[in-house]
Amino acid sequence: LTTECQKKQVAFVVYPGVTALDVVGPLQVFSDLEPYAPQFQPVVVAEHLGTMATDTPLSVVPRHTFDDVPEPSIVIVPGGFEATIRAMGSEGIRDYLLSVAETADVVGSVCTGALILGAAGLLEGRRATTHWAFYILLEKLGATYVHQRWVEDGKFITAAGVSAGIDLGLHLAGRLTNEDTARLVQLRIEYDPEPPFGPIDWSKVDRDLLAPILKQYVATELADRPELRAKLEA
Amino acid sequence: LTTECQKKQVAFVVYPGVTALDVVGPLQVFSDLEPYAPQFQPVVVAEHLGTMATDTPLSVVPRHTFDDVPEPSIVIVPGGFEATIRAMGSEGIRDYLLSVAETADVVGSVCTGALILGAAGLLEGRRATTHWAFYILLEKLGATYVHQRWVEDGKFITAAGVSAGIDLGLHLAGRLTNEDTARLVQLRIEYDPEPPFGPIDWSKVDRDLLAPILKQYVATELADRPELRAKLEA
Repeated sequence: LTTECQKKQVAFVVYPGVTALDVVGPLQVFSDLEPYAPQFQPVVVAEHLGTMATDTPLSVVPRHTFDDVPEPSIVIVPGGFEATIRAMGSEGIRDYLLSVAETADVVGSVCTGALILGAAGLLEGRRATTHWAFYILLEKLGATYVHQRWVEDGKFITAAGVSAGIDLGLHLAGRLTNEDTARLVQLRIEYDPEPPFGPIDWSKVDRDLLAPILKQYVATELADRPELRAKLEA
Repeated sequence: LTTECQKKQVAFVVYPGVTALDVVGPLQVFSDLEPYAPQFQPVVVAEHLGTMATDTPLSVVPRHTFDDVPEPSIVIVPGGFEATIRAMGSEGIRDYLLSVAETADVVGSVCTGALILGAAGLLEGRRATTHWAFYILLEKLGATYVHQRWVEDGKFITAAGVSAGIDLGLHLAGRLTNEDTARLVQLRIEYDPEPPFGPIDWSKVDRDLLAPILKQYVATELADRPELRAKLEA
């Protein structure tokens, strides 16, 4: 039996407009890990309680505020589109991340969640990844963008866009327990992917496709955060 | 511009205890399809409104009741574990599925959601799939289990366990629009999977692993559904 005081909390940070799969991919992995490794307890945290919209028609409800979970062992920050640019300017999220990053063993992100870590200054001088279309913003925040499914640098681990959170979750499950246990979780969620049109052909992807839109979102969503905006517009 | 009356609703059915990724995988795909094909409008429906637990610490909130969405163009039923065995006995869900199956173009499921379709009698004599550990129950409901990532039979399309809903979603996106559009959605959600420990080695999987537990859940969760129970225990 694992007593409460031995629990290591795995905190998933949510905020209005978050991309649903960014959260649910790794959250499902950690929920399915719990029967084998009950010391890792997934929790969903937000600055305030209450029903929260996502970028899908499904709204979600976090169970804890940041104050309820002051020292998670692991923290994972999911991404989104304009909602995440806005969240980069949230003082509540920044203060929480700066605080938990001091004591957590692992500070992670999925997709543009890396930009929230970056806005808090946590990725300066580090190798990191994010959603392919947002790499410019990550570099403006002092990180070196690496095009990999996930990137580890010290206690920081960042995943590529949206669905990469599942791979990040399974990788972490293996690191925190062992490969056999992670494979059991993989089997539970039957993660044996068959993208119907094959893998992404990166040679055909224009990574600067969204640059004009990003510029616009930085201007509107961070209108009241001149220092951060200056960095991103430099 | 797409007027409301041209909208084709893609209804995701949720119920208490549902597996979060079963819903959110294909829901994310259809939400990211909407900018390119606004006629397909994802909606989340349930028998009753209100906050609903999932099998993760994240609760979800459907926006519509079954009555609000009487004729979706597509309906997708996600799965779960004991919660899904219980949902197989829900008259509200069965009546809704029997009704929408008459007019819908596509009736789909993810994971054990196929058992709910099966319990409604919709998969009798059909080829179908489900989560690997539940194939026995699917066959008891008159379907022929096929071990594939997704299986199409007439208007019915069933996906394998949990994460297979993403592949099903992208396949449907391609079928409803075209391959280029589905590839754009794939790129948006950066679905270029790299399972950290490789694919599942099916030669090592005992598909009857859960048989004793399934027997128990059928007995307890369907205690007041003697006809359905008799079929599953035959």
